[in-house]
Amino acid sequence: MKAMTIRDFGGPEAFELSELPKPEVKPGHVLVQVAATSVNTIDMMIRQMGKDLPFAPALPAVLGMDFAGTVVAIGDGVTEYAVGDEVYGCAGGLGELQGTLAEYMLADARLIARKPKNLSMREAAALPLVGITAFEALTRAGTAKGQRVLVHGGAGGVGHIAVQLARHFGADVYATGGADEQLSMIEKLGAAGINYKTESVTDYVAKHTDGAGFDVIFDTVGGANLINSFDAAALNGQIATTVSLLELDLSMAHFKGLSLHVVFMLIPMIHDHGRAVHGQILGELANIVEAGGLRPVVDEHHFGLSDAGKAHERLASGQAMGKVVVEI
Amino acid sequence: MKAMTIRDFGGPEAFELSELPKPEVKPGHVLVQVAATSVNTIDMMIRQMGKDLPFAPALPAVLGMDFAGTVVAIGDGVTEYAVGDEVYGCAGGLGELQGTLAEYMLADARLIARKPKNLSMREAAALPLVGITAFEALTRAGTAKGQRVLVHGGAGGVGHIAVQLARHFGADVYATGGADEQLSMIEKLGAAGINYKTESVTDYVAKHTDGAGFDVIFDTVGGANLINSFDAAALNGQIATTVSLLELDLSMAHFKGLSLHVVFMLIPMIHDHGRAVHGQILGELANIVEAGGLRPVVDEHHFGLSDAGKAHERLASGQAMGKVVVEI
Repeated sequence: MKAMTIRDFGGPEAFELSELPKPEVKPGHVLVQVAATSVNTIDMMIRQMGKDLPFAPALPAVLGMDFAGTVVAIGDGVTEYAVGDEVYGCAGGLGELQGTLAEYMLADARLIARKPKNLSMREAAALPLVGITAFEALTRAGTAKGQRVLVHGGAGGVGHIAVQLARHFGADVYATGGADEQLSMIEKLGAAGINYKTESVTDYVAKHTDGAGFDVIFDTVGGANLINSFDAAALNGQIATTVSLLELDLSMAHFKGLSLHVVFMLIPMIHDHGRAVHGQILGELANIVEAGGLRPVVDEHHFGLSDAGKAHERLASGQAMGKVVVEI
Repeated sequence: MKAMTIRDFGGPEAFELSELPKPEVKPGHVLVQVAATSVNTIDMMIRQMGKDLPFAPALPAVLGMDFAGTVVAIGDGVTEYAVGDEVYGCAGGLGELQGTLAEYMLADARLIARKPKNLSMREAAALPLVGITAFEALTRAGTAKGQRVLVHGGAGGVGHIAVQLARHFGADVYATGGADEQLSMIEKLGAAGINYKTESVTDYVAKHTDGAGFDVIFDTVGGANLINSFDAAALNGQIATTVSLLELDLSMAHFKGLSLHVVFMLIPMIHDHGRAVHGQILGELANIVEAGGLRPVVDEHHFGLSDAGKAHERLASGQAMGKVVVEI
């Protein structure tokens, strides 16, 4: 089969088109003919800095985690799927798991679900990693009807899904962005936009919450921005983030009695821990998508398998509006 | 009425016996004849460093938060209590709220509950602050049947209640202590004792969890000890703490996908936010106590109102086994 591989970790030029043996199906797995895969920041991090990441794949490697495709073979013990089923998931591209930049991939059946019927392969491939991340963040933070929810980075890959899911959960949603295009996208998705470059935390907390703070904050920017999240949180507020690789002053979290939830959605793949939960979440997301409550936004640029490096460059440019997808 | 007051923040000698007007009952409040009050670390902090704490009372002040006593007058709008009811709560000693080191105190009816029938006034006064803290920590962390729960400081005021509550919730409980007397108390309360001075985190995680880590950790020591909690936690583990006044490296929380819940139980008193929840928790704790699932341990030393300074010294000495109580 055709696949894009890297021999060494490095820039987007590291990809090369290769011919690899088609994987054989294993117990508990399905073999999928990949129709599309989307690019996530973590794919770029592994490509660039894989030698510093304990969960990076051995070289040469096929990268890529998200996919949508069609089941072509069923492993022993798998009863939920049949050949011909259209499925989607986030199931490869690290450790010993072959990635999605290939014509075929082996996927642990617990990590996947049926593709939402009303999405194209291109759209469905955009959803798994960001959808699972947003779902986990908002549910661990106990997002509920009537709450005020702030999403930092509301036009990003994870953020634009989180805005829609928080609305689906019945919350009043606010989201930050730093450019007109981002704020316009946030408002189209049903949230009030906040320009973090021109509005201070104190200002937007006063404007949108009468100074009380937000009940739930999903900080998809994370890192040093977490201080802004602490500052914007209500008493006993809930903060979820995807990035906490830093030393942080927790005094404000103390006096406000906050909860901080760190979402690291690779854990089931890396540690084979809780994989079935990811399949269940993808099943729930498919229901929400089919009910009209959620739709991934896909960047207008099209890429084929041999353009994987260009797709990485597109995401790195910061110019993409929505997820960057590669069609195989 | 008689009360112990402080004119200036300072050492335990700051207390003096005074005569103050008996408070008049207010709407939404009850007037309580105080039978007993227990000493918490926060009382000592306010006495010593009150001028640096924004929520400290104005001087001269009556300190003390926890109480058990008898209702002697009912304010407008209070329907749950009658004169003669025995009640307990954590309802004074900061901001504009007069403390419990007095013959009478005014208590917001939302902050109190009926005293557990099978506890003496002396025992009931030991429970509110530590009981609410432990209940909030374990419930926010989602403590459930069959989980492995680690309590850091399991023989302390909050810790010895948390050990019993976690057992009541059906968890397998482990608790750290640093001396034989503490470990013996932990084991009497139904938990496995861990001597943190002689056992490393790696050792006790291997011994008690086969290396997987604890599902829930309640770190009543907090601060720099939080790193040990991150280290001892399972993937996607839940950590609750009462102390997070520091800069902390959150990298381990990132890669393990942890949740951190900071419990600052003074919020309802300081900010008049969520007070009814404290009354509800005290009601639930009374049920658990009456069903035999929980009993506060009270230090053997007895103190009267005029011994308040000595009671503070007893807690500060680290020699008390159980809560230090003052009988009025």
